[in-house]
Parts: sequence; C-alpha cells; structure tokens
Amino acid sequence: MSENDAVNGLEGLSLQEAQGGCAAGEEDDYVDPWTVTSKSDAGIDYDKLIKRFGSSKLDDEILQRFEKITGKPCHHLLRRGIFFSHRDLHLILSLKEQGKPFYLYTGRGPSSESMHLGHLVPFIITKWFQELFDVPLVIQLTDDEKALWKDIKVEETMRLARENAKDIIALGFDVRKTFIFSNLDFMGKCSEMYQNIIRIQRCVTFNQVKGIFGFGDSDVIGKIGFPAAQAVPCLSTTFPFIFGNRKVQCLVPCAIDQDPYFRMTRDVAPRLGFPKPALLHSTFFPALQGAKSKMSASDQNSAIFLTDTPKQIKTKINKHAFSGGRDTVEEHRSLGGNTDIDVPYQLLKFFLEDDEELERVRVAYSTGQMLSGEIKKKAVETLQPIVEEHQKRRKLVTDDVLNEFMTPRKLEFS
Amino acid sequence: MSENDAVNGLEGLSLQEAQGGCAAGEEDDYVDPWTVTSKSDAGIDYDKLIKRFGSSKLDDEILQRFEKITGKPCHHLLRRGIFFSHRDLHLILSLKEQGKPFYLYTGRGPSSESMHLGHLVPFIITKWFQELFDVPLVIQLTDDEKALWKDIKVEETMRLARENAKDIIALGFDVRKTFIFSNLDFMGKCSEMYQNIIRIQRCVTFNQVKGIFGFGDSDVIGKIGFPAAQAVPCLSTTFPFIFGNRKVQCLVPCAIDQDPYFRMTRDVAPRLGFPKPALLHSTFFPALQGAKSKMSASDQNSAIFLTDTPKQIKTKINKHAFSGGRDTVEEHRSLGGNTDIDVPYQLLKFFLEDDEELERVRVAYSTGQMLSGEIKKKAVETLQPIVEEHQKRRKLVTDDVLNEFMTPRKLEFS
Repeated sequence: MSENDAVNGLEGLSLQEAQGGCAAGEEDDYVDPWTVTSKSDAGIDYDKLIKRFGSSKLDDEILQRFEKITGKPCHHLLRRGIFFSHRDLHLILSLKEQGKPFYLYTGRGPSSESMHLGHLVPFIITKWFQELFDVPLVIQLTDDEKALWKDIKVEETMRLARENAKDIIALGFDVRKTFIFSNLDFMGKCSEMYQNIIRIQRCVTFNQVKGIFGFGDSDVIGKIGFPAAQAVPCLSTTFPFIFGNRKVQCLVPCAIDQDPYFRMTRDVAPRLGFPKPALLHSTFFPALQGAKSKMSASDQNSAIFLTDTPKQIKTKINKHAFSGGRDTVEEHRSLGGNTDIDVPYQLLKFFLEDDEELERVRVAYSTGQMLSGEIKKKAVETLQPIVEEHQKRRKLVTDDVLNEFMTPRKLEFS
Repeated sequence: MSENDAVNGLEGLSLQEAQGGCAAGEEDDYVDPWTVTSKSDAGIDYDKLIKRFGSSKLDDEILQRFEKITGKPCHHLLRRGIFFSHRDLHLILSLKEQGKPFYLYTGRGPSSESMHLGHLVPFIITKWFQELFDVPLVIQLTDDEKALWKDIKVEETMRLARENAKDIIALGFDVRKTFIFSNLDFMGKCSEMYQNIIRIQRCVTFNQVKGIFGFGDSDVIGKIGFPAAQAVPCLSTTFPFIFGNRKVQCLVPCAIDQDPYFRMTRDVAPRLGFPKPALLHSTFFPALQGAKSKMSASDQNSAIFLTDTPKQIKTKINKHAFSGGRDTVEEHRSLGGNTDIDVPYQLLKFFLEDDEELERVRVAYSTGQMLSGEIKKKAVETLQPIVEEHQKRRKLVTDDVLNEFMTPRKLEFS
C-alpha cells in the first residue's frame, strides 16, 4: 500500500486492518501505542510494519539526500537503521533546501519518575535535528494520557511530567528554541490548544478511533477524545506565541508505536488547512530480557534507568541482559555470537557512537573471538559514563530552569 | 423509580431505558439535550418525564419550606409550575438554613446571535436566586458544544458566546457575584478546568454516554467527550479563584432537557469527593406555533426574539401564535378558550408577574368573555415593554462591562 493511499479517509490503513491494533494475524507482531509484542527473539519485523502502516523506508537514497542538503554526516541512529521509517521526510528536506520554516515536535507520556535509556532515543535525535536545522522544538508531556490510562492521579502525573522534563532538559536542549509543556498545565495557559482540539475532534468519529486505536464501547470517554490532544501540537497555531497564526509544517521523531496518532493527524490536518506532519519512526529499544517486548518503566530489571548507579548498570547487564552467545565457550569460539538478538550488542548499537569500534566489536563477537562476558563488559563501560554524565547534568536543572523551558514564550529561529 | 435508584451507576435511568434519548415508546414524548418533541398540543407530559428521569416533583410542600426558610414568597416561575421538578433542592434549603455556602450554575449554548424570550427563563430564576441567597453564580457558554454539533466555526461560536453574554448581563446580574465564561476561552485561562474534565472523563465510559445521550459509533469524538465540559462547573474547584480548593455544592436551574448531563454528573461527583449538584428543572417555553416543540433560534417566526421591534412582536403574536380559541365567536362565547394550549396565555403565564391579573385573564378567556384577539392583545402589551426594556439595558452592556464579567476573579459572597 503506498503512502498516498487513503482508505476510509485514513491513509495507509483500512479500518478493517487496523481493528484491534495492528496485528495482521495471530502469528504476527502487535504494535499500538500501549502494547508492543513480538513472537521472534529478534523482535518486531520492521519491514512488515512499514508495509502495514503504509509508511516509507528510510533508505540510502533519502539518507544521501539528507547528507547532501545538510552538508553533515547522518547521525548514527539514522545510519544504523534505528530510525528506519518515515513519512514525508523529503518534504522537510525540501523546506530546508528552500530556506523555508518548519519545526520539530516530540513528546513523552510521564508514567514514572525515572526514565530509562530507551526513552532518550527520540530526544537524542531531536536534539541533533534542532542543532542541525536551527528550528523551534515543542515537547509534549501527555500527563492527561497517563491519568486516563494508568491508575495515577492528576496531581501525581503532573508532578511526574515535571520530573521527566528535567531529564529531557539534561540532554542539552537550547532553551531559546525549545518549549516543553504538560497538557494538564498548558491547556489552561493557551486557549488556542483547546480550540484546535475541538477543531480536530469534530473531524474524527468514534468509528475511526475504534479502527485506529482499537478503542471499545467500555473505554472511558477521556481515552476516546485523547488522540486529539496528541495531534494538536502538529498544528502550529496551537503555539501562537511561537508561530503567530502561520501554518507551519512539523517533523515528528518518535517510536513507531506512536504512528497511529499521526496517521489520524495527517488525515485531519489538510481538512483544517494545515500541512501534514512529517514523521520519522524509530525501532523499539530492547528490554534487557530481549527484543520481544518494549522496556517497561514499571519493571526495574527490564531496563537501565537514568537513575541507576554504575554498579547497578553492571549488575543489570551481567545478570539480566539477554545474550546472543553460545552455550559453551568452545561452541561460541567456533560459531560466534548472534548480534541480532544479543542485548549488549544492541545497547552498543544505540549508544556507542564510534562506527569503527562498533564494527570491530561486531566482527569479534560474531566470529567468536569476543565472548559474552567481554561484550557485556564493553556495554557496561559504554553506558556507565553516559548515565553518570546525564545525572550530573540533570542536577543542574533547577526548578527555575525547568520553569523557563515550560513558559509559553517567543522562540528564536531563523 | 425513586431519586436514589442507581441503575448501572446512573441514577434514575437504566441504560436500556435511556437508549435513543428518553422516549419510552413511539407514542411518547422525546426529550434529550438536542431534540424535544411531543405528540400532544399541550406539549410534553411533564409528570411522565419526572417518573422517567427519576427526579422529584416541585410540590407544595417544598415550595412552602422554600418560603419559610427564605421568608419571601416564591417567584411566579416556581409558583406557576414552570419550574416543576428538582433533585436535592431540600439539601440546598438546608444549607441556606444552616448558613453554609453553595453556589449557582447555569448556562447557554450560543448557536445564534439573537436569543429569544424562552432563553431568558433559567436566567430570570437564577437572578432571583442570586438576590435571594446572596451566593456566587457561574454561567457557562458552551461554544465548544455548538462548534461540535452545529456547522459553526470555532471563531464564530466564540463571537456568538460574547453576544449572548451581553443579553444575559442585561438581565441585571451582579458583577461582584457573577462569573460568565465561554469554554473555548476559559479553558485556556485556568488549567483546573481541563484537569477536572480529565477527572470526569476517566470515570465515564462510551457505553454510559451512549445510554444517557444516545451517542453512536458514527458520532465525532468531540461530542462523546463533551458532557464532561458541561459537568465540570458542578465541581467548585474548577473555579479556584472563587472557591479555592473547597468542595462546595451547587444548584443548577435549567430546562429539563439538560438533565442528562447532570444525571451523569451526579453519578460521578461523589466518586471524586464532591457533593452532587442539586437541580431545578423548567418546562419548555412554547414555540409560537404551539407547545409541541421547543422554540428554535433558527426559525424567525417560531419565537419572539430579544431583538424584535414592538411591531414585529405584535405581528408575530397576531399571525403566528397558536390559539386555544374556538372556531367562531359564538362557539367561543359559549365554550370558552383552552388555556392549556393557547400560546398567548402561556406567554402571559411566563411573563405577566401579577397573579391576580393573570387569574382574571384566565377566567375571562376560559369562560369565553375574552376573545382570542383580546388575549393576543394582552400578550402583545405585556411583552412589548419587557423586550424594549431589555434592549435598552443591553445597549449599556459595553465590551468593558462584558470583559469584567468574563474575567476570572474573586467573587463576593457571605
């Protein structure tokens, strides 16, 4: 199905196909914003997902165009296929080429105090984009979503939103170009947000969200309306203090499970006179137990958290990281490890920036020269300083700094 | 069914009964917030409605208690059964007796520029309550609802909200005790409103609003979520600038078709630690063409509008007001007119304050002494000065006055 197919007004996905999430059959992977499961040790089949969602592969051609237009090598998260799929990225590159404005939008659902390494992925690429393109960025914290889906009180999810925002800020976003907001707070500061929500909510029926998100009759009405809240940051007039009443296109880097929201938005935006948001999709960060599922912030041993000590990181990787190594040293030396399913190798693929070093590890491990214990050690030594540095920077994020990021204001951009 | 019956968590109304509005059978009246129809010339059978909705009759006993506690005679809209039903009015009277706080909440859906006489009814009684009880009043203009249900743009329905607010203010509300707000505007001024909407929306399922409001799968998601917006003014913390974080009970005077919203709210409020809103229900103001349906702001000849000239009022009543008179003068003189279906008489019942004069008219008309032309003349002469006075007062409502009423601020109350 091509990107431009519109079935029942929803591109790339017929209502029938989408019913009950995005599993095409019982044997298949299942991906929606709340559930990601796979039957395979290597995780989700992303090529199949591209076909099913109707997005486009982030292929060599577009990466080359990217490098040509920006004059910079692509980020390793792009080069290594961790971001693997897109919608309309060509249009964003053309805007860049023509010197026309666009902006970035990404977000997070604050359901726990401590974020894990996987949560950083969309923010890392977004920060890189912000520096490369010099464009405004809006970051949405969907505390309303978490109050609706999880058993968390409104006050608590608002508190978690602020805690998470500190971790996000610690990545080094430029305050002059970045606006961070929580829905439960910002809704009461800017009436354009609610106005745009109503504009979207009058274009989308229950039948449609049933098809896209798998909602049912026994779901609470807050869930049914919520997709509009995640959609509105794609309409630039939601932020009049940044864009005035200009209708500017945005690029949304996110994990592929968030795509349903933006398929819906891409259907509605043109009917309201706005450009469709462009999308850039990442694969899922593997749980320590293996790529079959997403990490879970509620299972302490499923992930490396940004609050973990060096010792905890070492213990978690040594004890819990799913290994692609062989059963005996002899077997491993002769057959080599399987990097496709080896979690320590996957962690390096996400976080070891040096391409040549990663390639050395890959060759050594898959030919059996490097043992499981050794690749684990490499992963531990790569992640420990990253998490430690993060903790240092996060300490510098005071409430004043946080409040500055979260204040609606003009942003600088050229 | 008694007031306290809770069926499927929704008091006084089983989901099955409520399905498709509130008609119990094909022969019955139909009443929901968007449709009111009756097969009878005398209009809705309100006693049946009380039974079906599970509310309580506003009977002599409670009116006597009302007069005893307030020390004032009841307003003619109460005395004459125009407000005919209630929920928990006894509790409000007890609060008054004990000197404990409560507040008033009423509203309007701004779908047209000019309001008609019938629209004034809940505001007239609300103003009387405000003076009698000396309590704060919040008035909600559901411009979001109108953007969702009618083919009206967000900007336009916000403009209509402000125009309608001027008519409401012209009735003489006390600015020190009255806050008027439009949802599409106020939502962006006070995050507590959205927070309370989410609190309510996480307690109500699609199945429930399907049962209460007759929503279906092809309805837009904005409609499905909207009932929470009409519910939140019943939670006093929606207005922290008035009530702080105190959980204060409210009394909602409204036409009976709005009851479904408050049945839902009465189910949810206690689960959030709030008192149930008390309700006072009015009958419908008859269309000029007769009591079979509600007036329609979109049909110029169905109602007397607040913008009508004395001449228009005269012409409308003489040409369009449904008469309960007989076919010939002879017949009328011998049999008398039927005041139950005579629209000019009904208009007098709503707007002629003098009880003795109204009784003289009733006797004269129903015994045939007074002819149809004469009762029409009486109605014209009663309404012309009311509308003229209203227009004069409305001219004094400047944008500054309007803005003062619509600014979130502390209200005076004892």
